[in-house]
Amino acid sequence: MATLGFVEYKNASPEVQAVYDDIMATRKTDWINNFWKAIAHDPELLKRTWEDTKQIMAPGALDAVVKELIYLAVSVTNGCPYCVAAHTVSARKKGMTDKMFHEMMSVVGMANENNRLVNGYQVDIDEQFKPPSK
Amino acid sequence: MATLGFVEYKNASPEVQAVYDDIMATRKTDWINNFWKAIAHDPELLKRTWEDTKQIMAPGALDAVVKELIYLAVSVTNGCPYCVAAHTVSARKKGMTDKMFHEMMSVVGMANENNRLVNGYQVDIDEQFKPPSK
Amino acid sequence: MATLGFVEYKNASPEVQAVYDDIMATRKTDWINNFWKAIAHDPELLKRTWEDTKQIMAPGALDAVVKELIYLAVSVTNGCPYCVAAHTVSARKKGMTDKMFHEMMSVVGMANENNRLVNGYQVDIDEQFKPPSK
Amino acid sequence: MATLGFVEYKNASPEVQAVYDDIMATRKTDWINNFWKAIAHDPELLKRTWEDTKQIMAPGALDAVVKELIYLAVSVTNGCPYCVAAHTVSARKKGMTDKMFHEMMSVVGMANENNRLVNGYQVDIDEQFKPPSK
Amino acid sequence: MATLGFVEYKNASPEVQAVYDDIMATRKTDWINNFWKAIAHDPELLKRTWEDTKQIMAPGALDAVVKELIYLAVSVTNGCPYCVAAHTVSARKKGMTDKMFHEMMSVVGMANENNRLVNGYQVDIDEQFKPPSK
Amino acid sequence: MATLGFVEYKNASPEVQAVYDDIMATRKTDWINNFWKAIAHDPELLKRTWEDTKQIMAPGALDAVVKELIYLAVSVTNGCPYCVAAHTVSARKKGMTDKMFHEMMSVVGMANENNRLVNGYQVDIDEQFKPPSK
Repeated sequence: MATLGFVEYKNASPEVQAVYDDIMATRKTDWINNFWKAIAHDPELLKRTWEDTKQIMAPGALDAVVKELIYLAVSVTNGCPYCVAAHTVSARKKGMTDKMFHEMMSVVGMANENNRLVNGYQVDIDEQFKPPSK
Repeated sequence: MATLGFVEYKNASPEVQAVYDDIMATRKTDWINNFWKAIAHDPELLKRTWEDTKQIMAPGALDAVVKELIYLAVSVTNGCPYCVAAHTVSARKKGMTDKMFHEMMSVVGMANENNRLVNGYQVDIDEQFKPPSK
Repeated sequence: MATLGFVEYKNASPEVQAVYDDIMATRKTDWINNFWKAIAHDPELLKRTWEDTKQIMAPGALDAVVKELIYLAVSVTNGCPYCVAAHTVSARKKGMTDKMFHEMMSVVGMANENNRLVNGYQVDIDEQFKPPSK
Repeated sequence: MATLGFVEYKNASPEVQAVYDDIMATRKTDWINNFWKAIAHDPELLKRTWEDTKQIMAPGALDAVVKELIYLAVSVTNGCPYCVAAHTVSARKKGMTDKMFHEMMSVVGMANENNRLVNGYQVDIDEQFKPPSK
Repeated sequence: MATLGFVEYKNASPEVQAVYDDIMATRKTDWINNFWKAIAHDPELLKRTWEDTKQIMAPGALDAVVKELIYLAVSVTNGCPYCVAAHTVSARKKGMTDKMFHEMMSVVGMANENNRLVNGYQVDIDEQFKPPSK
Repeated sequence: MATLGFVEYKNASPEVQAVYDDIMATRKTDWINNFWKAIAHDPELLKRTWEDTKQIMAPGALDAVVKELIYLAVSVTNGCPYCVAAHTVSARKKGMTDKMFHEMMSVVGMANENNRLVNGYQVDIDEQFKPPSK
């Protein structure tokens, strides 16, 4: 199910197929998941989103698995069931163990709780925590 | 500024002082930040929150700095200025470099964007991503 | 499925039927969607919500389709699957084309991303953007 | 105030200056607002964000002012004070009148309310609102 | 500070003054807080919002203080500093004690945590919790 | 369905069984709902979450039903379908009537609306609402 249905490979324009090919080559898989097939109705969005994803999720100063954990933490906080399901699988592929998942979830739970304690107790920023004015 | 004002060390009950002492000893600092002084009006909450924080944020399967990055990612997503300011500082103390911060922020920005693309394009979960029924 | 089940037309009180009649007359349809049938257990809420909706979504300084796009943008941001499904259909009825949908979604995605960049980089409001004090 | 301080034009690398120049040329202004100066510490992020903004916010199937209203609706929903302040000013520049602002705000308020009524009354999606399976 | 500045009593139209008078009479105060003076630029919104507030927040099956606690819990969850500050004061006026505030905050913190545990562990609804289909 | 499947009683460790036993004894039921069986993969999280829940949701300065209403209000605001379904049922068990549910939902809807009016109209906190600096 998707707002405009899915753009399957065989019905896709060459431009969309090129993105699909790059997704499969990069991920070493032979299928395209629903997210890409749903947004492919807007080829510009597809291209931009894939290129950003590819670049941003690649290992750098942070490992690939740490980036997946951060992505998952955001999706859990926002409550996006598709994103949680998809990135739990990709995090595992990149090395997330059960223990890492548990620890990430405990941090996410506690951060969501403490964020609200701060809001409700109306806590002002300590001088020591303020970033520079310039 | 805080809903009930701040509980300063010298005016605190022995039970609250014990928590303050443990915070300073654990963090090797000689001051208590506003968050703890604001919630200390509820000593039970103070104790529970500190003990959870201490345990959950300690290094385990994930490094201390990775846990701080996840905490920060949640706080940035929820928009909690105090939490962002405080945990940016503690993440640095635990080893976050500028480059790590930049990469975390790019992942957080993209996850927040993609979560909404999924919502708006009404993307169903692929069979491959579904967790087991049992 | 709904918390208290649905209030069907034939079982509804005259007061609820009057709202249902006005919804169908205004929308030129012969059925009532689940939202109204779910909240009809609280006739006061039903009446107030329908009257507000009718007035607020009517064309004014903004076209009806622009109002639907704004409604959709909020529902996508909050992650409300029912609201996204329902208002995608009503936006189309009021003239939303695929291209308008795509552009709305790109703006929503980017705004959700940039909102977090602002949070994480702790950006202060420029003097030029501050509204008047009086 | 910003996490890493601001990158002022005179201290910026040629690559960052080029983006600043394009921002000022596109907007016909002679200053750079804090958002860009805060994220310029990550030149890649700066470039990508500006290029996306420039393309996505340009008039297309939707007017520039409608895009600003959608951006504002998202920022109001998420509660990002900087974003609301900045985009209220840019929406005005692109033609937002007081009446348009009022109508946008009424839609945003009502959508946020109705999203929660749907959540709380646990309303299932009507068959008529479901997008195609294929 | 407010987007369009504040509408002070002496400069208000008779229609806005009538709402202001009713606010002060209902609350037994002699001043109008910024919220009303900010939205008074849209007299229809002012009237609708005040009438809804007056009716919804009045004691019914729930005490006035319980309604304030619920309002506060939502505002804390959403992170609206103005709303938290204003409704902390009004909750106190209606009888909120420190102990009630503490207990409310503990529930809010835990609910925000548990909501995310559910999201991340992808928990399906038990048959026993499903509302009726009809 | 759950990320790691469910930990059923008969396959659980003694430590997990002890928590399950306490849940059933406290609630006077003979089954364990999915939430606990999903997080039981992390026994420490299970234990901590149950002990906090048991203590925080017990009647104190606030009735048990008021605490459930607050929990529900947060879950409705965040859009957590599992949490809404589960806590609607437990709120009823603790005495929530239809009328109490309706009134809670009206407050939640309005608070979510007004939170955004405050954000969009950029309303500053009145001096009278500011908590003490000390």
